[in-house]
Amino acid sequence: MGAASDPAGSAEVARRGRPGYDRRSLLDAAVAVFNDAGYDATSVAALAARLGLSKAAIYHHFSSKEQILETALGDALDGLEGVLVSARNAPPAERLATVLRGAVSVLVAQLPAVTLLLRVRGNSEVERRALDRRRAFDQAVTALVREGQEQGSVRADVDASVATRLLFGMVNSVVEWYRPGGAEDAEALARDVLAVALDGLRLR
Amino acid sequence: MGAASDPAGSAEVARRGRPGYDRRSLLDAAVAVFNDAGYDATSVAALAARLGLSKAAIYHHFSSKEQILETALGDALDGLEGVLVSARNAPPAERLATVLRGAVSVLVAQLPAVTLLLRVRGNSEVERRALDRRRAFDQAVTALVREGQEQGSVRADVDASVATRLLFGMVNSVVEWYRPGGAEDAEALARDVLAVALDGLRLR
Repeated sequence: MGAASDPAGSAEVARRGRPGYDRRSLLDAAVAVFNDAGYDATSVAALAARLGLSKAAIYHHFSSKEQILETALGDALDGLEGVLVSARNAPPAERLATVLRGAVSVLVAQLPAVTLLLRVRGNSEVERRALDRRRAFDQAVTALVREGQEQGSVRADVDASVATRLLFGMVNSVVEWYRPGGAEDAEALARDVLAVALDGLRLR
Repeated sequence: MGAASDPAGSAEVARRGRPGYDRRSLLDAAVAVFNDAGYDATSVAALAARLGLSKAAIYHHFSSKEQILETALGDALDGLEGVLVSARNAPPAERLATVLRGAVSVLVAQLPAVTLLLRVRGNSEVERRALDRRRAFDQAVTALVREGQEQGSVRADVDASVATRLLFGMVNSVVEWYRPGGAEDAEALARDVLAVALDGLRLR
């Protein structure tokens, strides 16, 4: 909330004083605006006004608002899918730990893009493709949980798909409150998530 | 999504054929519309059209759209705060289990109102008061986690407020996918949440 806020009247100052955006920094700035004001509610004209740019300056880098969304969602999804690949060739419970640690790390490194991804509701073809990729990711993690249950390293009294939903409910909720540079760094956060998710909060 | 959908052109049929709403059923129907279309984006006129009612029929029960919101959020918060009360006079880890079980049960019983509560961003006085009550609830749970850490029944290597955020991240995420009447009943869901949150997914 408010991370990309632009005090009223500052657009003109920004237009004159701010250096030009390259494609990367424009993407980051656009994602911040989408997260703050809502993707559907933000037109290219409104985006340009918020960034102190002309619409032409945006169209120089992206063909449409939807292409900005597609690029941002693609980055977040590439990151998450990369985590699955890095977890190959280890016992299931260890791979599950690697996936959770990696997902937290992608989430922290790409907090704005992942936040945008988690808000996608399937209102367009781009959004539906992103949801399909999220679903495939969830299914791969569910298969990993099930493998762990079959091999006896993961508790089998919780349904694998429910367990996966609960794990990623916990991981994804981090976007609601985590801010880089706060009390916990990404590594401490990942350690805490793994501690609660894999070993639980209760001592015996 | 779409739980309250009303095919185009059906409003007139509904107006003639549907029995009148009492205050409770109007509240439930309004919350469903808010969750589907967004509270901010839904005017009283749009709400009336979606429910096949006149605006006057809505104003017969509620003085404003904001009063509908206030009532729904109040119901959800009353439920959650009741869970804290019911957990008094037991050791901390046991009270924590009671709070989690109770929160899942409130969430399932009042899924639409809790969904609305979790989307509140503080855009009005009513929303800010609801956020204050949510914050007080979180602080009470954090105090409970801390008490358990001091007494040695809750792991102390995770900060109490981070632990609380992760636990409720998991619990609250249930609104994203849980539907009453599906594969899991409320009791099974609460058991699964407690199993993962308190004892973790990994077997040793």
